[in-house]
Amino acid sequence: MSAIEELTAELAKLPGIGRKTATRLTYHLLKQPTAVVTRLARTIETVVERVRACTVCGNLGEADPCAICTDERRDGGLICVVEEASDIGAIERSGEFRGRYHVLGGRLSPLDGVGPDDLRIAALQARLGDGTAVREVILATNPSMEGEVTATYLRGVLEAPGVRVTRIALGLPMGGELEYADGVTIARALAARREMGVG
Amino acid sequence: MSAIEELTAELAKLPGIGRKTATRLTYHLLKQPTAVVTRLARTIETVVERVRACTVCGNLGEADPCAICTDERRDGGLICVVEEASDIGAIERSGEFRGRYHVLGGRLSPLDGVGPDDLRIAALQARLGDGTAVREVILATNPSMEGEVTATYLRGVLEAPGVRVTRIALGLPMGGELEYADGVTIARALAARREMGVG
Repeated sequence: MSAIEELTAELAKLPGIGRKTATRLTYHLLKQPTAVVTRLARTIETVVERVRACTVCGNLGEADPCAICTDERRDGGLICVVEEASDIGAIERSGEFRGRYHVLGGRLSPLDGVGPDDLRIAALQARLGDGTAVREVILATNPSMEGEVTATYLRGVLEAPGVRVTRIALGLPMGGELEYADGVTIARALAARREMGVG
Repeated sequence: MSAIEELTAELAKLPGIGRKTATRLTYHLLKQPTAVVTRLARTIETVVERVRACTVCGNLGEADPCAICTDERRDGGLICVVEEASDIGAIERSGEFRGRYHVLGGRLSPLDGVGPDDLRIAALQARLGDGTAVREVILATNPSMEGEVTATYLRGVLEAPGVRVTRIALGLPMGGELEYADGVTIARALAARREMGVG
């Protein structure tokens, strides 16, 4: 396989990138100055070398614990539970949240074989009971069927004395993805969060 | 800027990749095994190290002259003129062309400041007069307004004794891009090529 075919094949493995887009990207890169392309390659290598998951919250970053977990100005009594680390960036851009996070690493999905043991739920329960005085857990899983099921499941298993469990308001359109929502929508949904009953 | 933000910024510079897609790709890469991501980075570096433009036809490849220019089984009397090196792959996939190529490196576009001197036209004229007995030049610029203008211009300046100048048949939909056409359409368009009059 030639270098051009090889790169096209590698790019076509990325999500949302088909064969035609991969071809277009390859030839685009070949038209760029070498320095530009080398920088892209180095940046890709750097990201996997430097970025790791925070052992406390599961956020991806260059420190462990992550910059959010060690930020003393943030409210450790408030934990926002998200499906993926990429959701944290979306919530941070809203500028409305000053607590900390917990990344589940996915959502309950029986069809895909994802059950409670595949998510970082035990680690979340441990954080509630570790004496750091968590007052509230905000469930910010996606406003999708699976995200709702996951939130309902979590509501049932997150029983800890003195801890409120709330659900981010579904101002987000059903079926949408939190990661791609705009800051204003996320800010509103956070402000309108409501206490969840056990069902 | 963090490694994650840096990679997202680099990816967002690529054509057709916006901020959201770049974010999605970055987090996708972070979920892959390190070996997979390293291979992508290395493949990108390799492509710019190894790939160069053929000094004869302008095709991109790992040899100079390129594999097509040195392939003795190909008909050196037939030259297919394309806008970009990426168009060659599209025509090769049609399996209908056994001649050689000439890459212009673009198309005439006064609005973008691209004139005849910015394209590899002098090199094409030199190939017609170099005694290798070129019988026919097929103009396979894109079936767009600019591609048509470029073909018409070339028709005027490619006067060489004994050389036919033909235009690939516009079976391709106007406004489309040759690079993304399927092999059958390209094969038909090649077969139906017609002699071009001088205007």
